[in-house]
Amino acid sequence: MSVGQAIEKLRLLPFEDLGFARVDHHRQLRKGFPEVIYCPGKTNEQIIKIFESLAAKGNNVLATRAEPYVFEALANTKKFRNARYEKSARAIVLEQKKLPPSKTILPIVTAGTADLPVATEAKVTAEIMGQRAELICDVGVAGLHRLFPHLPRLQKANIIIVVAGMEGALASVIGGLVSCPVIAVPTSVGYGSSFEGLSALLTMLNSCASGVTVVNIDNGFSAAVTATLINRKIEEGS
Amino acid sequence: MSVGQAIEKLRLLPFEDLGFARVDHHRQLRKGFPEVIYCPGKTNEQIIKIFESLAAKGNNVLATRAEPYVFEALANTKKFRNARYEKSARAIVLEQKKLPPSKTILPIVTAGTADLPVATEAKVTAEIMGQRAELICDVGVAGLHRLFPHLPRLQKANIIIVVAGMEGALASVIGGLVSCPVIAVPTSVGYGSSFEGLSALLTMLNSCASGVTVVNIDNGFSAAVTATLINRKIEEGS
Amino acid sequence: MSVGQAIEKLRLLPFEDLGFARVDHHRQLRKGFPEVIYCPGKTNEQIIKIFESLAAKGNNVLATRAEPYVFEALANTKKFRNARYEKSARAIVLEQKKLPPSKTILPIVTAGTADLPVATEAKVTAEIMGQRAELICDVGVAGLHRLFPHLPRLQKANIIIVVAGMEGALASVIGGLVSCPVIAVPTSVGYGSSFEGLSALLTMLNSCASGVTVVNIDNGFSAAVTATLINRKIEEGS
Amino acid sequence: MSVGQAIEKLRLLPFEDLGFARVDHHRQLRKGFPEVIYCPGKTNEQIIKIFESLAAKGNNVLATRAEPYVFEALANTKKFRNARYEKSARAIVLEQKKLPPSKTILPIVTAGTADLPVATEAKVTAEIMGQRAELICDVGVAGLHRLFPHLPRLQKANIIIVVAGMEGALASVIGGLVSCPVIAVPTSVGYGSSFEGLSALLTMLNSCASGVTVVNIDNGFSAAVTATLINRKIEEGS
Amino acid sequence: MSVGQAIEKLRLLPFEDLGFARVDHHRQLRKGFPEVIYCPGKTNEQIIKIFESLAAKGNNVLATRAEPYVFEALANTKKFRNARYEKSARAIVLEQKKLPPSKTILPIVTAGTADLPVATEAKVTAEIMGQRAELICDVGVAGLHRLFPHLPRLQKANIIIVVAGMEGALASVIGGLVSCPVIAVPTSVGYGSSFEGLSALLTMLNSCASGVTVVNIDNGFSAAVTATLINRKIEEGS
Amino acid sequence: MSVGQAIEKLRLLPFEDLGFARVDHHRQLRKGFPEVIYCPGKTNEQIIKIFESLAAKGNNVLATRAEPYVFEALANTKKFRNARYEKSARAIVLEQKKLPPSKTILPIVTAGTADLPVATEAKVTAEIMGQRAELICDVGVAGLHRLFPHLPRLQKANIIIVVAGMEGALASVIGGLVSCPVIAVPTSVGYGSSFEGLSALLTMLNSCASGVTVVNIDNGFSAAVTATLINRKIEEGS
Amino acid sequence: MSVGQAIEKLRLLPFEDLGFARVDHHRQLRKGFPEVIYCPGKTNEQIIKIFESLAAKGNNVLATRAEPYVFEALANTKKFRNARYEKSARAIVLEQKKLPPSKTILPIVTAGTADLPVATEAKVTAEIMGQRAELICDVGVAGLHRLFPHLPRLQKANIIIVVAGMEGALASVIGGLVSCPVIAVPTSVGYGSSFEGLSALLTMLNSCASGVTVVNIDNGFSAAVTATLINRKIEEGS
Amino acid sequence: MSVGQAIEKLRLLPFEDLGFARVDHHRQLRKGFPEVIYCPGKTNEQIIKIFESLAAKGNNVLATRAEPYVFEALANTKKFRNARYEKSARAIVLEQKKLPPSKTILPIVTAGTADLPVATEAKVTAEIMGQRAELICDVGVAGLHRLFPHLPRLQKANIIIVVAGMEGALASVIGGLVSCPVIAVPTSVGYGSSFEGLSALLTMLNSCASGVTVVNIDNGFSAAVTATLINRKIEEGS
Repeated sequence: MSVGQAIEKLRLLPFEDLGFARVDHHRQLRKGFPEVIYCPGKTNEQIIKIFESLAAKGNNVLATRAEPYVFEALANTKKFRNARYEKSARAIVLEQKKLPPSKTILPIVTAGTADLPVATEAKVTAEIMGQRAELICDVGVAGLHRLFPHLPRLQKANIIIVVAGMEGALASVIGGLVSCPVIAVPTSVGYGSSFEGLSALLTMLNSCASGVTVVNIDNGFSAAVTATLINRKIEEGS
Repeated sequence: MSVGQAIEKLRLLPFEDLGFARVDHHRQLRKGFPEVIYCPGKTNEQIIKIFESLAAKGNNVLATRAEPYVFEALANTKKFRNARYEKSARAIVLEQKKLPPSKTILPIVTAGTADLPVATEAKVTAEIMGQRAELICDVGVAGLHRLFPHLPRLQKANIIIVVAGMEGALASVIGGLVSCPVIAVPTSVGYGSSFEGLSALLTMLNSCASGVTVVNIDNGFSAAVTATLINRKIEEGS
Repeated sequence: MSVGQAIEKLRLLPFEDLGFARVDHHRQLRKGFPEVIYCPGKTNEQIIKIFESLAAKGNNVLATRAEPYVFEALANTKKFRNARYEKSARAIVLEQKKLPPSKTILPIVTAGTADLPVATEAKVTAEIMGQRAELICDVGVAGLHRLFPHLPRLQKANIIIVVAGMEGALASVIGGLVSCPVIAVPTSVGYGSSFEGLSALLTMLNSCASGVTVVNIDNGFSAAVTATLINRKIEEGS
Repeated sequence: MSVGQAIEKLRLLPFEDLGFARVDHHRQLRKGFPEVIYCPGKTNEQIIKIFESLAAKGNNVLATRAEPYVFEALANTKKFRNARYEKSARAIVLEQKKLPPSKTILPIVTAGTADLPVATEAKVTAEIMGQRAELICDVGVAGLHRLFPHLPRLQKANIIIVVAGMEGALASVIGGLVSCPVIAVPTSVGYGSSFEGLSALLTMLNSCASGVTVVNIDNGFSAAVTATLINRKIEEGS
Repeated sequence: MSVGQAIEKLRLLPFEDLGFARVDHHRQLRKGFPEVIYCPGKTNEQIIKIFESLAAKGNNVLATRAEPYVFEALANTKKFRNARYEKSARAIVLEQKKLPPSKTILPIVTAGTADLPVATEAKVTAEIMGQRAELICDVGVAGLHRLFPHLPRLQKANIIIVVAGMEGALASVIGGLVSCPVIAVPTSVGYGSSFEGLSALLTMLNSCASGVTVVNIDNGFSAAVTATLINRKIEEGS
Repeated sequence: MSVGQAIEKLRLLPFEDLGFARVDHHRQLRKGFPEVIYCPGKTNEQIIKIFESLAAKGNNVLATRAEPYVFEALANTKKFRNARYEKSARAIVLEQKKLPPSKTILPIVTAGTADLPVATEAKVTAEIMGQRAELICDVGVAGLHRLFPHLPRLQKANIIIVVAGMEGALASVIGGLVSCPVIAVPTSVGYGSSFEGLSALLTMLNSCASGVTVVNIDNGFSAAVTATLINRKIEEGS
Repeated sequence: MSVGQAIEKLRLLPFEDLGFARVDHHRQLRKGFPEVIYCPGKTNEQIIKIFESLAAKGNNVLATRAEPYVFEALANTKKFRNARYEKSARAIVLEQKKLPPSKTILPIVTAGTADLPVATEAKVTAEIMGQRAELICDVGVAGLHRLFPHLPRLQKANIIIVVAGMEGALASVIGGLVSCPVIAVPTSVGYGSSFEGLSALLTMLNSCASGVTVVNIDNGFSAAVTATLINRKIEEGS
Repeated sequence: MSVGQAIEKLRLLPFEDLGFARVDHHRQLRKGFPEVIYCPGKTNEQIIKIFESLAAKGNNVLATRAEPYVFEALANTKKFRNARYEKSARAIVLEQKKLPPSKTILPIVTAGTADLPVATEAKVTAEIMGQRAELICDVGVAGLHRLFPHLPRLQKANIIIVVAGMEGALASVIGGLVSCPVIAVPTSVGYGSSFEGLSALLTMLNSCASGVTVVNIDNGFSAAVTATLINRKIEEGS
């Protein structure tokens, strides 16, 4: 592929201009991604119009950080009968095309119960992209014995997502126990000097364990997308 | 593998106790990693003793963030004739076992010339682990036309390392142009409100592009290890 | 003009003392500005009194960051029939004197849909000062192909306003693609390590592109005023 | 100009690949800019090679943040007889083509004597681009009477650069006294809670005066480039 | 007075133990202060009990940061007929002993209308301590001409309180125009990079003007107490 | 005890897997601790299930940071007749086994009345673990005479908990007056530059007094657990 | 005095323009201040020229933050025989006019020995303005018994300067023991979480004691100027 | 003991006034502490004078954070033949009275070799106070198998000091594996987003493990003093 072709390819990628938003329709084709709407800061009207535009192509659609009233407004349109609301993940899911399941399990590990909303956002995202995601909850470093029973499962994975707030040390500990990469998701769980997730974020960035990379605080979505990208490539081979 | 076996396996991993350090000798076996010494905060005497302990096993050894005087002290021992000093990367490399080269190229992209030390740390690390790493320098977002000629190469990679200081926006831009994961390395290059790399770090953590994960500021080493882990798994298949 | 004259000119500038506020009446004369009220921290009573004082001179009046209940209170006075509420911009606009339209277009570009409230504040402000402002929405750096169709328009502008939250990289990218100055407005759009706009602010301040200057987080108003000042001077010539 | 043409224009912009750097040669053509090298983080060898590459085109060359030993190394090559070192500005200047002087004066105002290095960086940069820049020094807000004699000159300018550390209030004060835009440069001058320029930066970003925009701490270069861009356009007319 | 006497004097200062609070009754005697209750974090029950304990001694009582419902609860007890609620200052005032008025005026200057709540807290506090406080509102540095008419009054004061949010530059400007000390009160007025008053706080701490000292963000109370302490001593002479 | 035994002991510690949480049942046995639920981020359903699981073993149960509606939901199950709600501490307490009281008093000292919720969390926690905790309230450093009467009691303690917000200086002062260790709890009490407890936290970490250690902001629970651990060991002897 | 007169008075204040600096010559007249040079960021040549300009008027001159090599350069000019270097304070003092001594003592209290440089800067500054300043050293809050012997002296002062780093609690403690105002100077003494004086600064700003105001970190000079202003006014009476 | 007696006891504590310092001589008597000098910010002359004053009483003396040149200056006085310099700990030790050894071992655990200086400061401090301290080095969480062999020793201790930089997670992990209290010492070891120890500090403050308290960054001294205080009380019994 020449340089001109590479740029031309970019220039011609299809998208739809809704005025307030430019909706990509090539993402699904190129990557097997769902179409995704990040809801905060958008009005219900905007979300619904983008949702319509995306759903019309027959693809899977995912709306993240959707408050219940957003889903309600969407449901009231009666246009998306198969859309469901994942309460813990605060996600709206419209699965129009079932993807073939991954060969391997994608473990999503949380330090505490309060990290569940972020972990389920990751799970919902990974699943709509075909990953067989499994939650392992509440195995934080202050009680390592709770983590030990899961070691065999973790050591078999191609990639692991670790979700933790407060001191955020779980990513380092797991990173040291496995030989695959770990995607660390700091959460805003905690109080006082957790500073809305800053503590966990810094801990994870400073991890001494090999293979740990980090995403934004509470960004279960991004962790799942990256993990899926990697796992797919591994399962496909290069 | 049972839980008991998993734990027992951990417990029996070999290491050597030098008093001031516990040197792992299983890392090479398990992961094909070099043995690694992070130099800051260690005395020359400590670094040399760890180096000896590691080299004695016949493995590759890598000492990162090594000031020139550290290499000089090591060279003066006359014990490691094949050790070389990589000046830009500030790394000491002793390659005793050549690893087979990766099938694919690992691109390491920098925004500016001043990001080179971090990028070469990543390159040296990746190479000693068998990766065919290639630098693409000085293609920051303020002059996108400099990036375009490299698009075809980037779009063929399994994974890309992006190294950028100042505004750190290159990771997002590349993340949006390719379909593989991107490991973003913020650097402390900049002044004033770059706050020693904080600006680039935050930019990268807040990236809207799919598949971008982040490591610590200036941590070329960790980016290379993770990229290698992922690329190996992809080349091996699951 | 002598020093004494310059100072005397300052001293004699007219304003009206409402006790809790000192209302400038020369701004319109000197600069062709609307009279402006920044609403937060003011009571409805205070806002209405200032509004009355300003409107009485027959000038255009703009109230920024006005919650809907402020406009309601103002409307209930039935004194300003022509005042309208711009919902997305959270602005109250009373246009009593139509200014001649600018010769050139002032592009206001946003990275995402959620940046619209700040961008529309800029648009409303620029328009009441006579600028022909145009919104280009949702062209963030994670999908550069969405930006490309607008390049011709951007390259013709005298000055461009770029509004972006999260990683805020759009200002640098556009700054590198055009030869005119860019005024960058970081927004508080984002979560986690966006730290209420700090991430975008730092990105923009550290921009490597020539001609980029920055205003306060979410300050669409100030960006529009400065852009108008500059564009007017360009259109008038020196 | 069509979209395809706009992109093609970008793609074909000339630059020279030195391996560690990609040197733009179109900047001079497009903008009448000097070629610029930002020195920190580059080795002497790299700086000299870039300097050679740039000078070979016959353009003006500017190297910023150059320590004296950098100039010494450059001088030792004996290749650039006309290059001079501006000590206060820490800049190396090679003026091969004299630009026509601007019609108007560009005032560069400092709050204190210690802000001079940043102000002179701005002055040197503006002058090599043809601006008739004039320094007005040491007129900080704690002694407004020192500022008053300069009011007539300031009120005649098309644009003003204000350089201030510590409390950084001078930009707001001048912004309120003139009707042209002000580019504010916070400096790292100060101690304690000035936090290396953070205090002045925040002050300037929060300015209530109309028309004030801000660049990075100590970034005299960027302020000068933007001011020149604006002033040229004003002098040319739209 | 010997050391033993000084300590004994401390030890025997009277206070009343309410269990959840220890109420000083000597403050009034020693300093002519009102008894003061800082309301946040205290329950209505606690506030009322402390108020009763204080009022029983016949002294003036001041409750700061009191939400309207606190005053309502207090009023419902029907025990303090003369207590009044100062809405803008959010203060409850019970004046049982009128203090003789100060000889001089204590000016309290604000940069904007939104600084009024903090300024009125200062005013209410100063007045209950006998000061003849006067507000000068909305004379921020972006329009110095609004400040000039007040110069004669300011230059006659023994001490001045300056209340400002956003860029907080007013304290420096006034400090440079008068020869008396200035107590600067940063306010949390602003948005974005004002960071809840941090910007104004840093500006004031870095003031180059002589005689400026600073209190906590929004702490009108403390500024008034200190100003009163100083003015009393001046009026009494040493 | 051999290494193998130590690890085996860890591996076999009993816990119960509720899916969203892993409930420890050995804590009580090993340490005489109550079973503890940290409520924030957990749904009522989750809290009730964990509570049931813990209570079923006959142990004491403590739920911290429980909003009143959590207790209401728990009470509505009618399963825990003896559970009580400690309003100030925001704790739910189910005491099923009374522990023998400590020989010595554990003083919990607060700087102000607003620190009471954190102090009572510490008191409730210490008491359910058998400590004879006593509150000493409102003895902040701005009125040392209020502290003096308590010196004899403080000097007899084995360990002291000091709870303070705002400037947080009380821990240092008490640390200098006693010879036992002090556990300092910074609170988020304050405003402005207290930055939600950061000021008190930094003060306490920088204490010059011997024997002062610090826990997270508002973490009365952790202070009480540590104090109890230490006091028990002292009372038991080594 | 009319407004016009007040402004005219400002406008006509004498100063001398050295190009790089504008030297005030009215300060001495108006306030009995020494002429002051803040040295950092100025070259030796600049400092000497300003010094000459100031000394030529026969006034007292004070150069603060002067490194020894600055004094050496000044001494080498042989023009200022009576100038002396105060090593601990890093100040150059030229006393050409002896001011009459204050009636009262100005106590300058330090928490530790390492705070001495800042305290002696305050002492030197106060003394050249005629204050009878006295140091009370090393009486930090971790050993209150060291403070007690000084209570009688402190309780007699008109105003007190308190200099403290680390936890900075001394200002609050003294503020609670005296009835006069306290000027608190945080110092950068400390390490780790003292964050170069931030900890002490926040402590002092959050002081609960009445009458405490704060200056910039390490700003002994400003504290002394303000204290002198206040004490003079008290001694003169209003 | 009455209140009066308690205060009198404080007032009469002996100290020696050296002018620049007040030297306590009762600490040794009351607590079995060494006399301690914190060196930074003190001149050699001051340190030597304090050292003399302390040594003259026949007590043990400890000077912390002493650079080699400080010891050299002290040694040159030839007055303290038995003083020795602990290089790694940067401490000067003069042991004139040997304390009886503790019954139990005090483990001091480090995450990495670079944490040794802080850990040895703790060790030297604990030993001069009679503790039998033992270092366990380089057992960070990224390789838990290195920690396991030490579990039996850790589980027997009365109290443990954990020293860790970078992610600082070791304190939480050990806190969860033992039933005794843990004193966590964050270190400034690390780079980039470790922000000079801030990352480790926040991690430790947010620890979920019971019984973990924290001291200032790099404060091995304070950790050792507190651990000794606690261990002595345990060994003595209450």
